[in-house]
Amino acid sequence: MLILGLDPSLSCTGWGLVRAEGARLSHIANGQIPTDAKAPMAERLAALHAAVSEVIAQHRPDRAAAEEVFANKNPQSTLKLAQARGAVLAACGAAGLDVREHAARLVKKAVVGTGGAEKPQVQAMLKILLPGAAIAGPDAADALAVAIADAHLKGC
Amino acid sequence: MLILGLDPSLSCTGWGLVRAEGARLSHIANGQIPTDAKAPMAERLAALHAAVSEVIAQHRPDRAAAEEVFANKNPQSTLKLAQARGAVLAACGAAGLDVREHAARLVKKAVVGTGGAEKPQVQAMLKILLPGAAIAGPDAADALAVAIADAHLKGC
Repeated sequence: MLILGLDPSLSCTGWGLVRAEGARLSHIANGQIPTDAKAPMAERLAALHAAVSEVIAQHRPDRAAAEEVFANKNPQSTLKLAQARGAVLAACGAAGLDVREHAARLVKKAVVGTGGAEKPQVQAMLKILLPGAAIAGPDAADALAVAIADAHLKGC
Repeated sequence: MLILGLDPSLSCTGWGLVRAEGARLSHIANGQIPTDAKAPMAERLAALHAAVSEVIAQHRPDRAAAEEVFANKNPQSTLKLAQARGAVLAACGAAGLDVREHAARLVKKAVVGTGGAEKPQVQAMLKILLPGAAIAGPDAADALAVAIADAHLKGC
């Protein structure tokens, strides 16, 4: 079972692919898709859609997952995030992939063992759970964490 | 100048094409893209992206416009709307179309003459401004209104 974890954001979307065989997890690939902050919004969203479509076409994951989206205190940030998410999810849907959503707390719990874990703890656990993986950056790390959580939470 | 007006929403996205030649406007086409409320989110977003891409490929507009998005009081509604918008804008961006945004107040002012106009007034004015146009429904009407406003506000 190949799982695509996604951490959509307009400035930089993270993705990570994890293979789950029973309880065994292995790292397949990960990356980050930055967009040009000076480009028009539609162009940035198209770039995210195209890059995610390419990752899916290349690796053909069996399913996809992302953190549950939350409404930020800053409405403009929420709108930007949700637009990026819309472009990314549309790419998944076009490939017949549904995107399962997991609460951030559950993702941390699945990776670290506690829902209140901080980012450095999550990143340290990723190194243990996916030995040898070269992680492209913090957004790719978040995406790998979601993929791992999805492997654990597969019954939900 | 062929202008594509868009009224993105998850349940039903409206679109409308208006040709502007100097001060003269003419209706080219309009439509609505409903999505299946029972389908997974990613599939609905992919359907919006595909349908808008098809409209653009068929008509090749010179530019596109949408109403400025606002953060609704209901954060979940805002997230759904913004995700739909992200899928629609990504389709525009992939075709090299930027999407200009106009405040709802300016759209009403451009069509009816007053920013406080109600929907029935906007729809009545559309019949006068675009005689003979068969309008697919309220979302298509909103999209045509945005296209007309964009024609008027071209300097902005």
